[in-house]
Amino acid sequence: MAKPKKTPRPKAETPKGFRDYFGAEVTQRAEMLHKIAQVYHRYGFDALESSGVETVQALGKFLPDVDRPNEGVFAWQEDAEADKPGDWLALRYDLTAPLARVYAQHRNDLPTPYRRYAMGPVWRNEKPGPGRFRQFYQCDADTVGAPSVAADAEICAMLADCLEEVGIDRGDYIVRVNNRKVLNGVMEVAGVLDPANPDNFAHERGIVLRAIDKLDRLGLDGVRALLGAGRKDDSGDFTDGAGLTDTQADVVMGFMQAKRDTGAETVARLRELVAGSETGAQGVDELETIADLMAAGGYSSDRVEIDPSVVRGLGYYTGPVFEAELTFEIKDDKGRVRNFGSVAGGGRYDDLVKRFTGQEVPATGVSIGVDRLLAALQAKGRMSAQAEGPVVVTVMDKARMADYQAMVAELRQAGIRAEVYLGNPKNFGNQLKYADRRASPVAVIAGGDEFDKGMIQIKDLILGAKIAESATLEEWKDRPSQYEVARGDLVAKVREILELNR
Amino acid sequence: MAKPKKTPRPKAETPKGFRDYFGAEVTQRAEMLHKIAQVYHRYGFDALESSGVETVQALGKFLPDVDRPNEGVFAWQEDAEADKPGDWLALRYDLTAPLARVYAQHRNDLPTPYRRYAMGPVWRNEKPGPGRFRQFYQCDADTVGAPSVAADAEICAMLADCLEEVGIDRGDYIVRVNNRKVLNGVMEVAGVLDPANPDNFAHERGIVLRAIDKLDRLGLDGVRALLGAGRKDDSGDFTDGAGLTDTQADVVMGFMQAKRDTGAETVARLRELVAGSETGAQGVDELETIADLMAAGGYSSDRVEIDPSVVRGLGYYTGPVFEAELTFEIKDDKGRVRNFGSVAGGGRYDDLVKRFTGQEVPATGVSIGVDRLLAALQAKGRMSAQAEGPVVVTVMDKARMADYQAMVAELRQAGIRAEVYLGNPKNFGNQLKYADRRASPVAVIAGGDEFDKGMIQIKDLILGAKIAESATLEEWKDRPSQYEVARGDLVAKVREILELNR
Repeated sequence: MAKPKKTPRPKAETPKGFRDYFGAEVTQRAEMLHKIAQVYHRYGFDALESSGVETVQALGKFLPDVDRPNEGVFAWQEDAEADKPGDWLALRYDLTAPLARVYAQHRNDLPTPYRRYAMGPVWRNEKPGPGRFRQFYQCDADTVGAPSVAADAEICAMLADCLEEVGIDRGDYIVRVNNRKVLNGVMEVAGVLDPANPDNFAHERGIVLRAIDKLDRLGLDGVRALLGAGRKDDSGDFTDGAGLTDTQADVVMGFMQAKRDTGAETVARLRELVAGSETGAQGVDELETIADLMAAGGYSSDRVEIDPSVVRGLGYYTGPVFEAELTFEIKDDKGRVRNFGSVAGGGRYDDLVKRFTGQEVPATGVSIGVDRLLAALQAKGRMSAQAEGPVVVTVMDKARMADYQAMVAELRQAGIRAEVYLGNPKNFGNQLKYADRRASPVAVIAGGDEFDKGMIQIKDLILGAKIAESATLEEWKDRPSQYEVARGDLVAKVREILELNR
Repeated sequence: MAKPKKTPRPKAETPKGFRDYFGAEVTQRAEMLHKIAQVYHRYGFDALESSGVETVQALGKFLPDVDRPNEGVFAWQEDAEADKPGDWLALRYDLTAPLARVYAQHRNDLPTPYRRYAMGPVWRNEKPGPGRFRQFYQCDADTVGAPSVAADAEICAMLADCLEEVGIDRGDYIVRVNNRKVLNGVMEVAGVLDPANPDNFAHERGIVLRAIDKLDRLGLDGVRALLGAGRKDDSGDFTDGAGLTDTQADVVMGFMQAKRDTGAETVARLRELVAGSETGAQGVDELETIADLMAAGGYSSDRVEIDPSVVRGLGYYTGPVFEAELTFEIKDDKGRVRNFGSVAGGGRYDDLVKRFTGQEVPATGVSIGVDRLLAALQAKGRMSAQAEGPVVVTVMDKARMADYQAMVAELRQAGIRAEVYLGNPKNFGNQLKYADRRASPVAVIAGGDEFDKGMIQIKDLILGAKIAESATLEEWKDRPSQYEVARGDLVAKVREILELNR
């Protein structure tokens, strides 16, 4: 028999593409989700929390007939039971697929329309990259079973409210609205969509959809090339175009550039472009209705506007499409000034539960990118990355631990974040280093002398750090950073310092 | 070639052992976690959020050399890359194993001691049962790197504060504290632990530990039998005992029954029992120190008490062990009165990161069972299972949608949960049924007549339901449940009704 090998020590590492979040990273996200949940709730949306694990068959899109159905998802097969092969399970990759499953499963017990919000982690089995992780948060709200465009309008208003609630000022964001039906009308006019034979020209329409979806990256010229003969990229590779004539391509290009100064003018321009198409006219009507409903709710065009250049997701959605963009400028990693860009998106999709029930159920919803929003607030200086540290009660005399605990209990009961130093108290310098590492605003110090006198020392660590930084400044002279106060004044003095430093 | 089979419709089902949570179930848990997080934070604990996925090797306990390491966990193997076999990944089964990994990985960047809290779902690949799910929440706080018993005392105080913060009254709970070292002392005295040869009697000690861990289920007599020759259960099966003599067994039994009226008397009784054992004396000293620190912090024995009958987890922990029990009675499923029982537990364990680093790092912590706490608050009637429904603005005239949206926007801006009915408005009865299903407190009704007059109808649905229930009562006569008010008084009137019904 082989000698048993000694087991090597396991590596203390997160799996590739995963990360840990510490302190303020966690609490700031939790606060943001809480604020957004409050807005969703005020709009009548109910919370839903499904589990992270779904059957692969319910998630869909991933084929159970390949050996291992893990295209983009983390999946595994349950153990077989009594000769029955185990089910394939997977981690959810978004919150919409679980909503479809939940709605199909519980539809008899749910109100119609069903407004729900959901927030939580989702997982993608993709190659991780810088800033791209395999677990991240989504924060969605959807209305299921409401065909009315008023449901879309409501989502736009709610999105604007959410952004303001989390600290994005009015004027620093815009919710832009477009409509897939208008694009369909445009494609009819351009001759690549025949309402009588919807399967015709499917290939050309695919190229058109992919082309306009790349507007951000390729610019108008690049999209124009793909609508016509095709496009050679910088590397020399050639991508086949849709083969539209100039006249046809002009209609599509006109769509993306249809935005005018006012909503009414934009709507008028779109009407010109889709003249003769029933679907197109319906799409323009919907945009007009959304604009009217927004105005009625007090949401003017500085918050929500019609903008046909919103093309992302037009291939996926079936009606109105919305996107929230932050309009202020930030500096990127290389110091270049650029717009912050998109932080949320959504739209109407009408086949939510068809896979399960065969029935078409209309749905519309939005997904807010909380991690991008947090980054935006940090870039604007609205959110410090540093959490407020605790008051640290240092330990000068181990035998007096009960007295230190009593101090810290008093502070906590007064609602002040506080702790006793629980490491080895021998080296007092280590205690102050610890307080520094915790970003403590205040240290409390009491040894034998102080206990005898009924006094304690309270050190303002923030002021102390400032004095240390600029020791030559005259103005600090008269501001001591350490105070001796009566034991009974502990809470009052600490509170005074915390408020001064706020 | 075989004809492609038609894919059957997928089943809309949660995987076995998983469930969905709706509305108040989600928000009440979120509120409870938020309140507990605030207490943890006030005590100086920092948030930590690790991902749901860990490597199997970091999680430990599960052997990577079996074909599929999924004993109790959900695990899968990553795809191979460049001839290197893929890593085995798994969903975390608790929050302690990830803490060990995080601390070992980041220890140079973390303060010492490191106080952290974590809350989130964990997954167990176990046979589901009634009320037992394969995904559930944990809510932990741990202090790593603090050998001082003051760290344990702090956890006990924090646990008491958490319970009161979420709505358990003082007197309705007790935090009970025991110590593994006292049990070790008892085992020395009983002759089944030899400090000079700690490997001796390991088999007997195992039986003793398992026996006392079953105190709740077997009672004192059952445990006594297992300490001696063995025990025959109701089915006739025989379990071998530890073979202790009566004198030896009496010492162990005395330990579990050592609780006296006051902490001081209990401590004195424990000192008698462990006389001659160094470890035992140390354990008793620790319990005495915890009692002193509790008293100094204002936590008297009606909140935290020394109780040697706390035996759960004594096999796992290495020093102080704590358990929070709710002391009020509830009726179980069969109508029997019983104590609600344990809602939290924890203790000291000193080998947190040893697997990774070889170093012993002391740690102590607590885990609060949020789902059991929620059930307790519901049993006490402190928490309604029904969320507050939205005000529903009904739709009498589809063409006036902008007016309805304006109403609902006003209500929401006033902080009132409200929505427009977004289903098909044709059948007005359906709209009121919808309002009923949503538990709406108020319906707003306005048709052509009302718009012409500048008036709206406001219906108090809660009062309306009461009137419908007890229509004969004279007292309702003068209380109409529907009011006609001026359009401008919408928010004021709705608020008045909401406050009356609160």
